[in-house]
Amino acid sequence: MKSSIEAVYHIRCEAGVVDGRARAIAVEQSVEMPVEGIEDECVLDEIVGEVHEIRDLGRGLFEARIGLNAQTTGDDAGQLMNMLFGNASLLDDVALHDAILPPEMLAAFGGPRQGFAELKARVGVSRRALTCSALKPQGMAPAALAALARRFAQGGVDYIKDDHGLAEQAYSPFADRVEAVATALRSGGFNTRYVPSLTGDLDTLRREIAIARENGIDTVMLAPIISGVSNMLALARDNPDMAILAHPALGGAARIAPPLLIGKLFRLFGAGAVVFPNYGGRFGYSRETCKALARAALDEWGKLRPSVPVPAGGMRLARVPELLDFYGAEVMLLIGGDLLAARERLVEETKAFVASVEGYAYG
Amino acid sequence: MKSSIEAVYHIRCEAGVVDGRARAIAVEQSVEMPVEGIEDECVLDEIVGEVHEIRDLGRGLFEARIGLNAQTTGDDAGQLMNMLFGNASLLDDVALHDAILPPEMLAAFGGPRQGFAELKARVGVSRRALTCSALKPQGMAPAALAALARRFAQGGVDYIKDDHGLAEQAYSPFADRVEAVATALRSGGFNTRYVPSLTGDLDTLRREIAIARENGIDTVMLAPIISGVSNMLALARDNPDMAILAHPALGGAARIAPPLLIGKLFRLFGAGAVVFPNYGGRFGYSRETCKALARAALDEWGKLRPSVPVPAGGMRLARVPELLDFYGAEVMLLIGGDLLAARERLVEETKAFVASVEGYAYG
Repeated sequence: MKSSIEAVYHIRCEAGVVDGRARAIAVEQSVEMPVEGIEDECVLDEIVGEVHEIRDLGRGLFEARIGLNAQTTGDDAGQLMNMLFGNASLLDDVALHDAILPPEMLAAFGGPRQGFAELKARVGVSRRALTCSALKPQGMAPAALAALARRFAQGGVDYIKDDHGLAEQAYSPFADRVEAVATALRSGGFNTRYVPSLTGDLDTLRREIAIARENGIDTVMLAPIISGVSNMLALARDNPDMAILAHPALGGAARIAPPLLIGKLFRLFGAGAVVFPNYGGRFGYSRETCKALARAALDEWGKLRPSVPVPAGGMRLARVPELLDFYGAEVMLLIGGDLLAARERLVEETKAFVASVEGYAYG
Repeated sequence: MKSSIEAVYHIRCEAGVVDGRARAIAVEQSVEMPVEGIEDECVLDEIVGEVHEIRDLGRGLFEARIGLNAQTTGDDAGQLMNMLFGNASLLDDVALHDAILPPEMLAAFGGPRQGFAELKARVGVSRRALTCSALKPQGMAPAALAALARRFAQGGVDYIKDDHGLAEQAYSPFADRVEAVATALRSGGFNTRYVPSLTGDLDTLRREIAIARENGIDTVMLAPIISGVSNMLALARDNPDMAILAHPALGGAARIAPPLLIGKLFRLFGAGAVVFPNYGGRFGYSRETCKALARAALDEWGKLRPSVPVPAGGMRLARVPELLDFYGAEVMLLIGGDLLAARERLVEETKAFVASVEGYAYG
């Protein structure tokens, strides 16, 4: 079989049935029908998934490496997700752990058009980690959000992203919000970049990118699992000057390994920065998961630009040295709530955040 | 708080911490920041999620009913998913069980433009269940798929859907496949409807719908979780004459209750038929889940048209009476692999399937 994709599944089952389970997944994720019903020799030779290897990981968990024909994806991002995990996502005992993709596919998708290096260059940073905070809570009017952005900028933060809950809402329409925040930062002479959150169907996403561009914005955020990965890729292709931050909302990530989904696939489909729940915060990712995710976003992979890992979710100022020890300079640290909770001391706390990141002795 | 959405979460935790966990989810799914950092009284009153009720379901599982402000969704389908389960999807111990939505929101999304009644009318069926089969395996050329469709039609099946693995692929381009299959059915004088599978970004989905329409096709399929629910809704709005079958691929459905995701939300966002893994097949849904899903698709819900439940996934001809006992006439039975496995007897087996559905004594 011509199996240029290798999908790696983790299967929870008895040792005696794992061969059959792996073969069933190979069939499910390719022809999805009884193999004995297939008359076409080409399909049997070229399309039916092939079990390459099964390894016992211990404690009733097995790893199955399954070859899939890359032609089945037609170089569409959504169809790649479908072939990797479409029906298998409905199987309780199967997780998608990794995917090894052929070089032609990496070239076809192309990865970030604006990656880590470009995100650093935008804010004139060379050796240190990047800093980021978040505009929230939703419910605030554009002028209030703009005033908040101005205070973050006074604190010297590199990027200010919308909370992923900010959308096209009556109390804060996208166009008004973007204009208010962009004007506040520009008129203040700040180099801080505002990253508005895009939502809606592809038409709406495009309208929002146009509004962002009119306001001099060069970095945007979206949630690829909500928007559909094919649509993120379309935006990346059509807007090679825009950096895209990917947000993990609805990513569940319990059944697709986060290093694969967020670190690898979001990068492949055009995200130059990937937000993920850091260990020790409000979410349950382990240190190992976070490290693997950061490596997947950064490691050499074909000719794809690296994406910057953006650990987030309940980070506190006091943890900055620990996080830089863990991630090094190749990271964008996102602290939102902890700065907002400082209220009237927000500018000072933001300055302390920035000073902590600038003053760290990078190895 | 003006809480017109009630989201129902199932939380696995110790009884002593459930109040705090529920409050944390209410905050996570609304303002996503420490409440003590919020200065705006309106946000505190109107936007912060509110725990309405907590029930002990036993065995360490709790149900929390949480009020969310409907304005936060801006009537966008993706943003509704985001507000219901965006960040909570990253919490291992939380599942989204149900969502009670305000009447205005049902009206704004509008549900299926072509629902169960229209799907029956298309094929001249009034009292019995509908029948469906699937074109597969992928890898076959258009002419071979067309020949297969012709044999299913000779067997008298109502609908023939593409396998959800069929996409825009070099060995079977969408336009060629649709033309070949549509021509085969039309030239044979069959009333059987062909349901091609749409994939790709919204532009591509629209191009494919246009091709389908040029070929006289009035029913299409897509996977809303892969395409993005906002894009399915855009297609439903722009193409009120097209019936849409929703496929659960990538739906995982382990963390969002399938009756909610597939039965309710896919219907709300425009799907007139919802495919789901039937109990006792290759997937793990229980009888109770399948029944609840079918009810959610069919039950009176505002002014939304009902969607037809389409149980699938390893169904066998011999189970038809059992399935009709279970679902009644309000179902579309989908049998793919079991008919294909009959090979040279495919037409006869399809006739037997149709006869079994037609001959059943509906209550």
